[in-house]
Amino acid sequence: MDKPEPAELDRVDELIQLSLKLFLERGYDNTPMSLISKEVGLTKAGIYHHFENKEHILYAVHKKSVEKNLLPLIEKAEQITDAETRLRTYLYDLARQLTREPTATVLLSEARRMSPEHYKEISGVWRRSYGVLQKAIVELQEQGRCPKHINPAFATFAALGSASWIVFWFDYSRPESGEEAARTIVDIFMKGLLS
Amino acid sequence: MDKPEPAELDRVDELIQLSLKLFLERGYDNTPMSLISKEVGLTKAGIYHHFENKEHILYAVHKKSVEKNLLPLIEKAEQITDAETRLRTYLYDLARQLTREPTATVLLSEARRMSPEHYKEISGVWRRSYGVLQKAIVELQEQGRCPKHINPAFATFAALGSASWIVFWFDYSRPESGEEAARTIVDIFMKGLLS
Repeated sequence: MDKPEPAELDRVDELIQLSLKLFLERGYDNTPMSLISKEVGLTKAGIYHHFENKEHILYAVHKKSVEKNLLPLIEKAEQITDAETRLRTYLYDLARQLTREPTATVLLSEARRMSPEHYKEISGVWRRSYGVLQKAIVELQEQGRCPKHINPAFATFAALGSASWIVFWFDYSRPESGEEAARTIVDIFMKGLLS
Repeated sequence: MDKPEPAELDRVDELIQLSLKLFLERGYDNTPMSLISKEVGLTKAGIYHHFENKEHILYAVHKKSVEKNLLPLIEKAEQITDAETRLRTYLYDLARQLTREPTATVLLSEARRMSPEHYKEISGVWRRSYGVLQKAIVELQEQGRCPKHINPAFATFAALGSASWIVFWFDYSRPESGEEAARTIVDIFMKGLLS
């Protein structure tokens, strides 16, 4: 992607937003460049000025999503010293975020359509998210606050699953229940994990 | 679908299996009838003898999947009187099944491509699965074995999420860890839920 002029930034942003919407509604394969071009009101040449090909748009959509929705939560969590607070805070923030913004998990199903280099970059952020939880669980085990027989990887995936699944059932027309949904997930997991 | 002759049953079964494989690898939209026909070694006319159209194949794939992988677990659980045992047994069986057979969750992303009638039938089984867990949690609350402030719907989805997420992370080349994975998910959830 060329560095866009400041005045073009909004246009690129709009293109990413609209492409995300189309990918979610129709799937990546079912969304031709001609449709993106039509929806965003740019010629194909105009799009190719910013994006080499459709895969680069998919990458930009993923990059935007992790930068906006995931990295800030990770960075906040990594500042927290106490393992229990860090685990609880990150899992809550993650679940709460998914009650606001349903796209993250749905994007997952199209992630493998990215080039290996792009996939590696995006999945690196997912691994960092996994690492926040897994590392906190190991620390809790070392501190004797979580039973040693619990497999930290499986426990991490149990937590990630209960949060990530939100996008398949949460009623986004009732955003006011997002807080209780996230809290329920975190409370059950933390009570289940700790000694 | 016409009632197949006994001798044709294997062929229909093979067609469903192969279609499932193709849908998972390529997505439903990206799998033309011509490819299914080629892979299964039947003419298109031969396929249309059994299935009205591609949507009917998608429905048959889903029907097969719930009949084989989900209904037996539901029926087993519904026989169990004690709510805690029922909840624990069903969640374990569900998680364990997903460590054996990764297709159930992945099929979910294509479910909406079914006709409304077919979708209603298949999602009815999913609702019954949800009901097994939700009903057990409500019973436990009535028996004073689970705190009343826990929202049974959110708790049910937390359990379903931690199990269903298995298909995104489980290492299917190491089937021997399926039991521990399922047990970890169930132990954390049950301890987190119960008073």
